[in-house]
Amino acid sequence: MSVLESEVRPGAYADSIVLMQLQGALAKLPGVLDAGVVMGTPANLDLLAANGLLADELAGVRPDDLVLVVRAESAAAAAAALAEADGLMERPGATAGDEFRPHSLASAAKLMPEAGWVLVSVPGRYAAVVAREALALGRHVFLYSDNVSLEDERALKQTAGAEGLLVLGPDCGTAAVGGVGLGFANRTRRGGIGLVGASGTGLQAVAARIHAAGGGVSHAIGTGGRDLAAEIGGVTARQGLDLLARDPETAAIVLVSKPPAPAVATRVLAAARAAGKPVVVCFLGQPPPARRLGSLWFAAGLTEAADLALERAQERALEASAEGDGRVAAAGGRGALRGLFAGGTLAYEALRTLSAVVSPLASNVSFPGVEPLPDPSRSRGHTVLDLGADAFTVGRPHPMIDQDLRLRRLRREAADPETGLIVLDVVLGEGAHADPAAELGPAISEALAGRDDLEIAALVVGTDEDPQDLAAQRERLEAAGARVFGDLAAGLAWIAERLRPEAPEPLLPVPLEALAPPAAINVGLESFYASLVGQGARAIHVDWRPPAGGDERLQAILERMKDR
Amino acid sequence: MSVLESEVRPGAYADSIVLMQLQGALAKLPGVLDAGVVMGTPANLDLLAANGLLADELAGVRPDDLVLVVRAESAAAAAAALAEADGLMERPGATAGDEFRPHSLASAAKLMPEAGWVLVSVPGRYAAVVAREALALGRHVFLYSDNVSLEDERALKQTAGAEGLLVLGPDCGTAAVGGVGLGFANRTRRGGIGLVGASGTGLQAVAARIHAAGGGVSHAIGTGGRDLAAEIGGVTARQGLDLLARDPETAAIVLVSKPPAPAVATRVLAAARAAGKPVVVCFLGQPPPARRLGSLWFAAGLTEAADLALERAQERALEASAEGDGRVAAAGGRGALRGLFAGGTLAYEALRTLSAVVSPLASNVSFPGVEPLPDPSRSRGHTVLDLGADAFTVGRPHPMIDQDLRLRRLRREAADPETGLIVLDVVLGEGAHADPAAELGPAISEALAGRDDLEIAALVVGTDEDPQDLAAQRERLEAAGARVFGDLAAGLAWIAERLRPEAPEPLLPVPLEALAPPAAINVGLESFYASLVGQGARAIHVDWRPPAGGDERLQAILERMKDR
Repeated sequence: MSVLESEVRPGAYADSIVLMQLQGALAKLPGVLDAGVVMGTPANLDLLAANGLLADELAGVRPDDLVLVVRAESAAAAAAALAEADGLMERPGATAGDEFRPHSLASAAKLMPEAGWVLVSVPGRYAAVVAREALALGRHVFLYSDNVSLEDERALKQTAGAEGLLVLGPDCGTAAVGGVGLGFANRTRRGGIGLVGASGTGLQAVAARIHAAGGGVSHAIGTGGRDLAAEIGGVTARQGLDLLARDPETAAIVLVSKPPAPAVATRVLAAARAAGKPVVVCFLGQPPPARRLGSLWFAAGLTEAADLALERAQERALEASAEGDGRVAAAGGRGALRGLFAGGTLAYEALRTLSAVVSPLASNVSFPGVEPLPDPSRSRGHTVLDLGADAFTVGRPHPMIDQDLRLRRLRREAADPETGLIVLDVVLGEGAHADPAAELGPAISEALAGRDDLEIAALVVGTDEDPQDLAAQRERLEAAGARVFGDLAAGLAWIAERLRPEAPEPLLPVPLEALAPPAAINVGLESFYASLVGQGARAIHVDWRPPAGGDERLQAILERMKDR
Repeated sequence: MSVLESEVRPGAYADSIVLMQLQGALAKLPGVLDAGVVMGTPANLDLLAANGLLADELAGVRPDDLVLVVRAESAAAAAAALAEADGLMERPGATAGDEFRPHSLASAAKLMPEAGWVLVSVPGRYAAVVAREALALGRHVFLYSDNVSLEDERALKQTAGAEGLLVLGPDCGTAAVGGVGLGFANRTRRGGIGLVGASGTGLQAVAARIHAAGGGVSHAIGTGGRDLAAEIGGVTARQGLDLLARDPETAAIVLVSKPPAPAVATRVLAAARAAGKPVVVCFLGQPPPARRLGSLWFAAGLTEAADLALERAQERALEASAEGDGRVAAAGGRGALRGLFAGGTLAYEALRTLSAVVSPLASNVSFPGVEPLPDPSRSRGHTVLDLGADAFTVGRPHPMIDQDLRLRRLRREAADPETGLIVLDVVLGEGAHADPAAELGPAISEALAGRDDLEIAALVVGTDEDPQDLAAQRERLEAAGARVFGDLAAGLAWIAERLRPEAPEPLLPVPLEALAPPAAINVGLESFYASLVGQGARAIHVDWRPPAGGDERLQAILERMKDR
């Protein structure tokens, strides 16, 4: 038999690590079998229930309420344990020190004016207010807190982007600047690989592997998991890439993110291409668009990303200062892409590669991140068409045999002044048209006549044993003015090089000093302060409490009063 | 000025290549500016409209109707052109010969009893009937026709699978058996790489690249684009893998498909693992689950797939006959997987790799092909949990600091007799728990006690400079009985090796003779017949017409009479 006793403290606040320690301490008291100390969120109540700790009295508990539950051998033991809770909570933690602890960020900033960073790990609903204050004080923010709204994130990053400040987060687990880890960070030797990532443990796994393989990390810029969402636009990732591009210590960059919004992905990749350094891109859960596109290398996973970066950094070290500043323009597109494919899989491969480079991209082929084309007879902006799709082939031969459809479309696309680049595949071999270049050649010449702002690329799939004579086909297409590729991947890389997304709103460059060994103000989890001090960084800890003791209405009033 | 004249022939039939030739011939007649000859499908009418060829009279036209349109300089020229149409259509084509041409598949099969293959390229609505007849005659089918229903495909492949016959298609563009291309196929030298693919031009691009790099192709088994859909279950792909596994000429295999249904993907990959030969897998548009899982290698694109296969075939040639028959069981799972992750990105990486191996797989993390877990507090079959998700962390420290949640969950999962493999990540470094193994170790020992059907794997992310002492952490976890991995990719590969999908319904093995140089009966496009003959294959062409002249009702009656 056991007895369950609970206590609810409405609106009470304690550092979550303090709660964890209290729970551990309660569980160790005499006669206590198990204990739970949590905020009263639905998930936490489910968890109490799953562990046989959900007392009946907890029916009306709210997320703001602090809940203490004890299961004990007797009612007396349970009551005794709960009575000890306050004493246990006040016991100084392992990291408590004697230093003076300011009660506000503002006074901490006065005490340590050289602190360029503020670490924020207070509960989510208070975090945006603290971060805003830090930005107003001109400091970069490492925003560990989660459960911050998308609107708050957007507003914080817009402010930061316009003022040359960084907001790493919210929900940013990991960063390392100037050799000092912020939040969660593995200790690695320093070296030439810079990391940017919307993924905390992703960055850690890459950093740990780089270290294990003998490489080193220059800096790691965590961005928070939502930075590459459409609403945020990759502000921090773009700032981070730009910073590492200018950082002389960084020879190669790794960019890690869970699947980004398509339009954001293209802009962030454009920023990566603009870095003028090799960038290894790992968009987890997304098919890599290619093995390589110019200075970008694509990895399907974290281990591979680390390995590719190690290779790139080594190559780069060999090249050394031989080359100048390789930075290129991040944006400024040419005309629209029009891909007119006979081969369905070739259209698919084109989408895979090119959807990483331009957005929006439309197609009659369904592909993640690509817009469906409502009327395949009309192209719209960047468009890739599979002319062998069922809808086009009822009662007519496949376009690999019958080129009429494609020749007509080619003429129409060339007549569209929006069109800047037309891509055709030419599939040779048994069963295919006996001499496709004989028809395509004149059509290509005609299309290019009088349009010096138009290019045409032909991706040829064939062998030197094919009946059509591969070399003659290539020659004829080249003579007509097309750029001809025998290798699909190489052709798509060339096309990708020609396409640029629209320029995103400009960001004020973040001064390189952001990457110097940091001095920092810590607001929230005391363990982060201890970690900073342990790493030899100058740091100050704010003895933060929720404004108005956790009362949100009162807090809102106080906030408004401050603004006046 | 120009004049538009049209003619509609309800229910008329002609080989689509004949229509193409007729259109070309009409366009060349005196006074004719443009011509269109198409079946009256909506897509074709749109196309006529886009080219200024949609005459007002065509308003009520149906997909079964043959439509002829001429735009000419004068009404007289237009009328004269249309009047010539019949004469032009009857003109013998380029490939006409003097051979006797049977009017039915049955009589062709009597004339050429050694013909193991039937090529079917009649219009889609007739194709299933012809294919069914071919199977009834005990022949393999190359089914080029598209616009065949999914139900028909399912029925055909079920019949074929139960009788050791192949149905390549519908909508199968490409195959090559015994050195002879069926349908569209590049001519390549023969060699050690066998291809299986739900993608015609995909197979062609891979084959062409293998040839260009000096390699060769043993056989190419096209499956039709929908073979890996849930309704079909990858019947042909599994047959193809099994055939190439037994084929002594084939040293390495390439498997190409557009994104398969998750449950089908895991079974087809299990069949690939069972082949006992290296298989390079390219599921286009899907993130590769890993670089390598046992004998499987994953490519993100066609060029990479060809390159990986060339490497594998070379390695295999070096190993030669040193090893015995390396075939392994394709199925027979252990208990359920339970992944309890503190790191969100590590959970994501686990999903990427393991979703290729088992299905269904459930998670509280959203990932393509993975089932959402309605109640994260309860695992369901194979489950991967991100315990750092926002819902779990409100008001409590991240599980990388506070292991309580995970320790409790570990106990529960170990108590579930369904559980066969528990996976934990252990992230070290600044900010993380000071000694995670001190808590995890005893919990792991306890979980393993008395359960010899349970395994526990720990994926450790850390460096030898981390404050927790990487080596000591690993030792403690190992001493507790966990299998410990310092490299994420290696750990996930080990886990993947332990998991097996449920066995799919068994298929009767296709005799190896299916891969011999084929003799074939061609029903449909005459150009395919010409291609067979040109490649030196024995072939016979059936002078096929739609039953009852294209009248579908009458055709259905005739079909029913035949069955009696």
